[in-house]
Amino acid sequence: MTTWLDVPADDPFGIATLPYGVFSTDDPDLRRVGVRIGDQVLDAARAAEAAGMESGLLWEAPTLNPFLSLGPQAWEAARAWLTKVLTDEAYRDAVEPHLVPLTDVTMHLAIEVADYVDFYASEHHATNVGTLFRPDNPALPPNWKHLPIGYHGRAGTVVVSSTDVVRPVGQRKAPTDPAPVFGPSVRLDIEAELGYVVAGATALGTRVGVGQAAQHLFGVVLLNDWSARDIQAWEYVPLGPFLGKSFATSVSAWVTPMAALASARVPLPGQDPEPLPYLRGSPDEVFGLDVRYEVRVNDTVVATPRHADMYWSPVQMLAHLTVNGASLRDGDLFASGTISGPTPQSRGSLLELTWNGTEPLNLDDGATRGFLEDGDTVTMTAWAPGPDGARIGISEVTGTIRPAAS
Amino acid sequence: MTTWLDVPADDPFGIATLPYGVFSTDDPDLRRVGVRIGDQVLDAARAAEAAGMESGLLWEAPTLNPFLSLGPQAWEAARAWLTKVLTDEAYRDAVEPHLVPLTDVTMHLAIEVADYVDFYASEHHATNVGTLFRPDNPALPPNWKHLPIGYHGRAGTVVVSSTDVVRPVGQRKAPTDPAPVFGPSVRLDIEAELGYVVAGATALGTRVGVGQAAQHLFGVVLLNDWSARDIQAWEYVPLGPFLGKSFATSVSAWVTPMAALASARVPLPGQDPEPLPYLRGSPDEVFGLDVRYEVRVNDTVVATPRHADMYWSPVQMLAHLTVNGASLRDGDLFASGTISGPTPQSRGSLLELTWNGTEPLNLDDGATRGFLEDGDTVTMTAWAPGPDGARIGISEVTGTIRPAAS
Repeated sequence: MTTWLDVPADDPFGIATLPYGVFSTDDPDLRRVGVRIGDQVLDAARAAEAAGMESGLLWEAPTLNPFLSLGPQAWEAARAWLTKVLTDEAYRDAVEPHLVPLTDVTMHLAIEVADYVDFYASEHHATNVGTLFRPDNPALPPNWKHLPIGYHGRAGTVVVSSTDVVRPVGQRKAPTDPAPVFGPSVRLDIEAELGYVVAGATALGTRVGVGQAAQHLFGVVLLNDWSARDIQAWEYVPLGPFLGKSFATSVSAWVTPMAALASARVPLPGQDPEPLPYLRGSPDEVFGLDVRYEVRVNDTVVATPRHADMYWSPVQMLAHLTVNGASLRDGDLFASGTISGPTPQSRGSLLELTWNGTEPLNLDDGATRGFLEDGDTVTMTAWAPGPDGARIGISEVTGTIRPAAS
Repeated sequence: MTTWLDVPADDPFGIATLPYGVFSTDDPDLRRVGVRIGDQVLDAARAAEAAGMESGLLWEAPTLNPFLSLGPQAWEAARAWLTKVLTDEAYRDAVEPHLVPLTDVTMHLAIEVADYVDFYASEHHATNVGTLFRPDNPALPPNWKHLPIGYHGRAGTVVVSSTDVVRPVGQRKAPTDPAPVFGPSVRLDIEAELGYVVAGATALGTRVGVGQAAQHLFGVVLLNDWSARDIQAWEYVPLGPFLGKSFATSVSAWVTPMAALASARVPLPGQDPEPLPYLRGSPDEVFGLDVRYEVRVNDTVVATPRHADMYWSPVQMLAHLTVNGASLRDGDLFASGTISGPTPQSRGSLLELTWNGTEPLNLDDGATRGFLEDGDTVTMTAWAPGPDGARIGISEVTGTIRPAAS
């Protein structure tokens, strides 16, 4: 399948990807849904109007949420329509005027985030963190292999890629400090994660089983769960992370549909012990994803994590999240937790890559880093295998650290 | 100051209270802001229109959020106007037609909750829980007296008073169980809390100091933080409560303005050690609240907690929540955590009242309760001292337990 646009065959944003985002051109308040192809953005609502697609009206909106609310059949129909008009020359005259160069648009947060939940689904990450934070206990807590551990984060501070991140201020206390110290975080870190955009509101008191979970997964974003390790270490017992995480969570501007990741589904690495029945499903239902990350600090590649190493499946996370009857809303977002694998270069946080700062990274410009310094830029990119050898891009998430407010 | 309505002098919803809520009459989709006085509801937008108040248009809305966004000066002006038209006979003819009996309305969730944060601000509660959950460690974690511990909860499952609560299902594991067990919670509990409705959006990377915090507090609700203790105990290490809390959080239908609680401000019981400077303020700024609770299980009063016993002030909670640069949105909600005092009858949870079920409560009907059974109804009411001996009501939060979904 080829598009009539001039897009190289190996472009990760070719016809097999078609991610959705929210953009504006001259007027930042005039936000609307766009679809990325190559280095162009299709103004989806206007193209739909020009090519006679009625339900495209929901793309004339400042977030993806109205479109999300339509559900999986409508998403499939929309994707089929987009594929048709971008491959069939007959639609070219109607559609082409509604393409805008990527360099001419400003991207905005694609979804209005309802609730944000962060999981902890990498066995390698949890083992590393447990070893570093709780050296006197077993690295994995007793519950870890029985349930996908998660917690709620701050939905209001989820920001779109390219938003600057102000270094957070707060309390920290090293074991040797007699009292807590107040000031800018000195252990500012990243976490390379995959974020899942959820759609399809459910009623309070009902649950979404493993077999139904995929119908509620609209797509994925790259997600950087910025973490102030010093603030987190002092605050998190007993009720979990709070200010060490809530200052900012960055997500990619483009949401890659789950439909584009059909060829990237892989079996999980293996779960032992077998989880309780509500977390079990056929291999078709309980899948992993072969998404390959590249994490750069100031243009040096510091890690190449692989989502295929994750212990828990996103459908298990969603089934667990709702097993107690918690309802879902369009625009709920949940994240995988740091993606770390078995090898040193596959670790998705500086905490692990530098072993809590004790083994600093060497950057290409000669600098070294334990944790992030002001002015550092962190950029994550990722791709997954698509049909016929295509690469499916998941667009970058980037952010630059600004000094703490005085 | 007396109203021209027939409201008894000792009514907790007299002219000195004037809480806001969202109601409907015949059409449940036609929601609008109301103001409670006695056992009547003033249709605020229509009364404002009839009595010539222009900004009352924002009351023609399905939530309080548009009104919240106006800020403290507008709230003060609106309250002054409401007081005037409900006390001055000259407005009676215009306003009286827009009063609806409380028995004729359906109440809805008053705010669209943006982010929900739950604190842990009672020293007595934290000490009791620590003793029960972590008997091998000091009852209070080392950070407890240095910062108000908090965590994010699920905003989408905050429900209005009178909503039934379906018993949650999930994993639990007693120390003696060889593996986790799956099923309905067998330790379903309550937590008597005060919820603070926040308004006034702030920019990411800025903070709200102790001196500014009160300007962001619009009002309070009673809040019951339903808790499945067995699910919580198994899941909460290391990232905090998740499914043990996220199935439902009930709030009162009426939001009592902070302005009505001016006479209820009291000094905190005392903080030792003195907190870090960002949590300090003058006694005017860092206040406690004399709010007196009554907690009933099936009409038996089981506890009478007092908010004046809380260790941390709500302004300290808000200053802490934003010290890392986390932004606020209109409709953010944060809660005090369980309100427990030094005496057995002042404990705000069954966990504490029954000492983890080992000392069941005797109800007036002859039944006993360790934790909640299906069909149980829990009702919390509260009041605070007002001007001239008036009582300021904070309206009830009630809910009935329904059996777990099969």
